[in-house]
Amino acid sequence: MNASTILYAVIGDPIQHSLSPAMQNWFIEQFRLNAVYAAFHVRSEDLRACIDGMRAMGIGGINVTVPHKEAVVAWADELADDVRLLGAANTLKNSDGHISAHVTDPHGFEESLGGHADRFKGASVLLYGAGGAARSVAYALAKLGVRQLLIAEVAVQKAFELAELAKSFGIKNAAALQKPLAPMKTILANAHIVINATPVGMHPWHEKTVVDYPDVITVDHFFYDLVYNPGKTRFLREAEERGATVQNGLDMLIFQGLHSLRLWTEQELRLSTGQFNDLRSFMKKLLGIDE
Amino acid sequence: MNASTILYAVIGDPIQHSLSPAMQNWFIEQFRLNAVYAAFHVRSEDLRACIDGMRAMGIGGINVTVPHKEAVVAWADELADDVRLLGAANTLKNSDGHISAHVTDPHGFEESLGGHADRFKGASVLLYGAGGAARSVAYALAKLGVRQLLIAEVAVQKAFELAELAKSFGIKNAAALQKPLAPMKTILANAHIVINATPVGMHPWHEKTVVDYPDVITVDHFFYDLVYNPGKTRFLREAEERGATVQNGLDMLIFQGLHSLRLWTEQELRLSTGQFNDLRSFMKKLLGIDE
Repeated sequence: MNASTILYAVIGDPIQHSLSPAMQNWFIEQFRLNAVYAAFHVRSEDLRACIDGMRAMGIGGINVTVPHKEAVVAWADELADDVRLLGAANTLKNSDGHISAHVTDPHGFEESLGGHADRFKGASVLLYGAGGAARSVAYALAKLGVRQLLIAEVAVQKAFELAELAKSFGIKNAAALQKPLAPMKTILANAHIVINATPVGMHPWHEKTVVDYPDVITVDHFFYDLVYNPGKTRFLREAEERGATVQNGLDMLIFQGLHSLRLWTEQELRLSTGQFNDLRSFMKKLLGIDE
Repeated sequence: MNASTILYAVIGDPIQHSLSPAMQNWFIEQFRLNAVYAAFHVRSEDLRACIDGMRAMGIGGINVTVPHKEAVVAWADELADDVRLLGAANTLKNSDGHISAHVTDPHGFEESLGGHADRFKGASVLLYGAGGAARSVAYALAKLGVRQLLIAEVAVQKAFELAELAKSFGIKNAAALQKPLAPMKTILANAHIVINATPVGMHPWHEKTVVDYPDVITVDHFFYDLVYNPGKTRFLREAEERGATVQNGLDMLIFQGLHSLRLWTEQELRLSTGQFNDLRSFMKKLLGIDE
């Protein structure tokens, strides 16, 4: 730490349980950057003063979390294309007082897939949820070239809106499912990929799942849960028991964070396999995940 | 580092060469505080946005250096008594969005004296300089109970002002010296304590000294130079050669910083002799001081 050390931070309300400081400082150490990453509890009414303060103090970058991801867009000087399309940002970059807004969640989803990315080209995807996380996933799905996107969400109006948005991203075959009417069993059976982008499966819903007919799951399914704590939700467990390929949200969390750091530093920043495994263990320990 | 880690920082313009981040993070490590200390380059026109940002982000404390020490007083919610008297602050403390302004330089001077503090009671002090540092020293001298304060400064009007201020601090016998008129040789000979609070002796004035008649220095003199780089200025060297007791500004730098951290943490924070010697070595290494 010296007078040239750059500060990065995450802002949110609440912020107490954010894993970002631990994870980002782990990155900073591994990549030997002269930087440090803090967390600030910022209330909505203080958001503007926070961004102005970022400019005044030369804070290099800020990660934005709930509930500021949408509101922060108004205070940036420049919006990345994906921020315009999604109406939300999770990353602010300060270039000599000029604040640009970015969103790294879609990238985080994509990079987290690794070799599984190939499964998405031309696939039919069943997506549970239509909130901010689901929007980011839909954006990534468009880039991955899925053929069909079916959106299941209790608040059906939100599902319709997301379907329209997904069409604007380029997924022509995007539709909202009205649960009591839609033949969920058949849809689930025919989907190649099933994604949970709702909080169901997290505490206090850790014994719940969005899936109604787990019996139709086969070895050909790919189940992806954005939830990472618990490491294996009922959603993933029931799929794994039937031989499906499963993945939780931990790697997406890691890659969305790493991508913010890449934007800030304008460096490639690649993790070796060894580093990546170390980071996963470190994160699981922080989360208190045994598995 | 986690989401509860408190951020402290120093602001100034320039700030590149500040030693505060290195020193304060050393303290933070030694005292095992969950905190981190950064440096922000803040321009005068951004000072208000910086303080508002401090409130919005919950930055725990800020050290203020040149050129903001006076201007910052206007943006604090509450001023400590010494800040009122000195018209300058070097420490802002954030208590749930309420910003109080403090000045730790007088305390830093006092605590740096250690056993030499006894020399000041009833002493006659010759002080070179009448800027912000000299004001802080004058405030400390009042508390230390000096009998007489004579102020030598090229800009004589500033010396007169400081003499008036010193009187208000309680040093009845305070006066400005007009160099061409004042019998400097006799004054120096009769002073018990001689303090340099000017930048003379620092690079690029490192071969200069404020003292015109070093030959009258004796073993009874105490010479204190606020300059700490070089570690031994010509001011101190000429005094030491004549057997005087000498001290440079390094310990004052250390104690003014430590005192800020005490204000922020509301903890006693005492250094053991071993820690203190380690810190001095660390600081000298940072400064590139051999001696």
